Amino acid sequence: MTLHDAIARLAQFNDDPAAGGITREVYTPTYQAALAWVAERMQAAGMTTRIDAFGNLWGRWEGTDPSAPRVVTGSHVDTTLNAGRYDGVVGVLGAVEAVARLRERGVQPRRSIEVLAFAGEEPRFGLGCIGSRALVGAFTREDLDALCDRDGVSLADALRGAGLDPDAVPQARLDPAGVHAFVELHIEQGAVLETGGEAIGVVTAIAAPHDFRLTFTGAATHSGATPMHLRRDALAGAAELLVELERLATVSASRTTVATVGVIGVAPGAINVVPGEARLDVDVRDADLAAREAVVDGIVLAAREIAARRRLTVAVEPIVRDTPVPCAPEVVTAAEAACAELGLSHRRMTSGAYHDAMIMAAAVPVGMVFVPSRGGVSHHPDEYTAPEQLDAGVAVLAGTLQRLAV
Amino acid sequence: MTLHDAIARLAQFNDDPAAGGITREVYTPTYQAALAWVAERMQAAGMTTRIDAFGNLWGRWEGTDPSAPRVVTGSHVDTTLNAGRYDGVVGVLGAVEAVARLRERGVQPRRSIEVLAFAGEEPRFGLGCIGSRALVGAFTREDLDALCDRDGVSLADALRGAGLDPDAVPQARLDPAGVHAFVELHIEQGAVLETGGEAIGVVTAIAAPHDFRLTFTGAATHSGATPMHLRRDALAGAAELLVELERLATVSASRTTVATVGVIGVAPGAINVVPGEARLDVDVRDADLAAREAVVDGIVLAAREIAARRRLTVAVEPIVRDTPVPCAPEVVTAAEAACAELGLSHRRMTSGAYHDAMIMAAAVPVGMVFVPSRGGVSHHPDEYTAPEQLDAGVAVLAGTLQRLAV
Repeated sequence: MTLHDAIARLAQFNDDPAAGGITREVYTPTYQAALAWVAERMQAAGMTTRIDAFGNLWGRWEGTDPSAPRVVTGSHVDTTLNAGRYDGVVGVLGAVEAVARLRERGVQPRRSIEVLAFAGEEPRFGLGCIGSRALVGAFTREDLDALCDRDGVSLADALRGAGLDPDAVPQARLDPAGVHAFVELHIEQGAVLETGGEAIGVVTAIAAPHDFRLTFTGAATHSGATPMHLRRDALAGAAELLVELERLATVSASRTTVATVGVIGVAPGAINVVPGEARLDVDVRDADLAAREAVVDGIVLAAREIAARRRLTVAVEPIVRDTPVPCAPEVVTAAEAACAELGLSHRRMTSGAYHDAMIMAAAVPVGMVFVPSRGGVSHHPDEYTAPEQLDAGVAVLAGTLQRLAV
Repeated sequence: MTLHDAIARLAQFNDDPAAGGITREVYTPTYQAALAWVAERMQAAGMTTRIDAFGNLWGRWEGTDPSAPRVVTGSHVDTTLNAGRYDGVVGVLGAVEAVARLRERGVQPRRSIEVLAFAGEEPRFGLGCIGSRALVGAFTREDLDALCDRDGVSLADALRGAGLDPDAVPQARLDPAGVHAFVELHIEQGAVLETGGEAIGVVTAIAAPHDFRLTFTGAATHSGATPMHLRRDALAGAAELLVELERLATVSASRTTVATVGVIGVAPGAINVVPGEARLDVDVRDADLAAREAVVDGIVLAAREIAARRRLTVAVEPIVRDTPVPCAPEVVTAAEAACAELGLSHRRMTSGAYHDAMIMAAAVPVGMVFVPSRGGVSHHPDEYTAPEQLDAGVAVLAGTLQRLAV
């Protein structure tokens, strides 16, 4: 089975095929079935597999020195709602393929190589990268009850539903001394490689998000009976903030800050009622921490000014605040050497999207390899990377792993 | 049982008591149970009752000349989501109380007086006043299949669920020659009476809505990997339109136009995805038709300009476009005479909210009587009108009916 075919097979595990894309959220029965299928693929490639206490799937190819710190590679196979089939999946199935190729070539690595499918990179529970966060010990037991999905299911309940014990989650914690490096193959999710015509992106730094929720509260009054000047319209305030948020990101000192509102909700939500409440989930990202925080501060300041002027209140609730990370020079060097050997053009670049590698960087040296995304489209059914582009990514990942596993 | 107590009893029919307000949408089992209770109240007040082919409830107090065109009064007992307990209900239970008082006083009207509880004034199916629309013959059989609620249930299916036959709906059509006048008692849903200190509002004209849906479409791309200048953010375009919509209504030539977006939705709706689609349900109202249409035109023009500048597309779908109506002089005169006789202060005013009376005006002479709303709050659990204010409204309605039924 080619990687392209394997990706198509995995895409069959889908909770909403009628929507046209893939919906496979972590810990759902569909996700668990997909994970079992991935484990079979790992075993077919000669790896032994295990599921850790958080539901992360590990496949191990033992090296000639089993006690040496190992090389870990992987990504995730969960998706957002109605997403594409490449995001995350390429880094898991591509890693299985890279291991299979190295074995076929008779490579015998000194270090063991492990392929990892992180549980929950996408923010089902409002927070991304929960699988890698569990590996670096980021969760308290209370967090598992507090984090809930859009239907109010807590992370703890979702773990139980997948046959896992929330009290055992600390056992998933990784010993950093046992890991030599982590490398993640991923689609770019932007249009930089396509625009530049390069085959491969070698990532030198990963931008990190600062996410928070703004809730404007005004008065839910009748749309017909409330003159414009007597309104306390929460959505009108939110709209003004949205315009200002876009402006603040555009003029950010780093020129690389992005700010997005991807989730908005109003209450009560009837056509003949002025919204009494408007909630915005704000996502601000940059590899430049100071520039990012300046934009966040500007957004919060603007929200307070708008609220005061419009006789609204505004509440700010934290969602996540991660730190941008540089990639490890040894991983960058290994990936660039692999590109050179294969004769593949590459570009050094920053990852605008965050990834599990960003979280793993708190504990171990990390790096990333990107393949192009057609039209820069991601998290959408139209997400696409051509078979030959995937093949180049697998070849570079194999070469990188081989160098790191020496 | 006082009117205040009856209102409290009806509030027990509630599909979401935990939310703090009333949720009783038309044709639900809870609504049907409420309607049966209202029919019992009508019978206790000496009326004969029937349900017509659309689910409108009629109570009849026969006059001394049963063949004379009758006087009809009433309102509705369905609610929006998590609403108050007075909107609509006051006009139904208050009319039952008015009839009871006239009977107690030994009044024998020449014309029959009928109390009507319209089915579905609130826009469960995206369109308000469906009960009165059925009475004036506004629906084709196709409309009943096409109009759907937020869960995709069609009006036709909802009718079936309430034991009604969609094919029989034309039988609900009212013969205008059989109706002398229609008068509706209602809470103001604004703060004009409270601010002015008047007990009663006598309505001289009813503003009407022009509602439509704007759908902006851009590109759903990754929030981290898509630089600001490469975005086609549908919500950013919608936000700009919201700011302009508020401005256009505020500067409208009539000084009475209101424009509202009470419903907004984005797709795909994830914190790390730039919205590829944003939908706004726009509601524009005025008793001045030309001023209203000028604001609607300005909004649509602005939407198209914003979309073109941002490389978005925008679609405009009609929802409803009703015509503002003047109230009938004979009803206004009767209501004012009733106020004078009772020594109650009153104000002539326009209704900013629409009501079934607006739809009925297409077929018969109409009028309305308002009682104050505390703080102008409506469609909200805090909606309130004091018992003595309700009592004044019932007294004026009784006096109005008595005069019209001569």
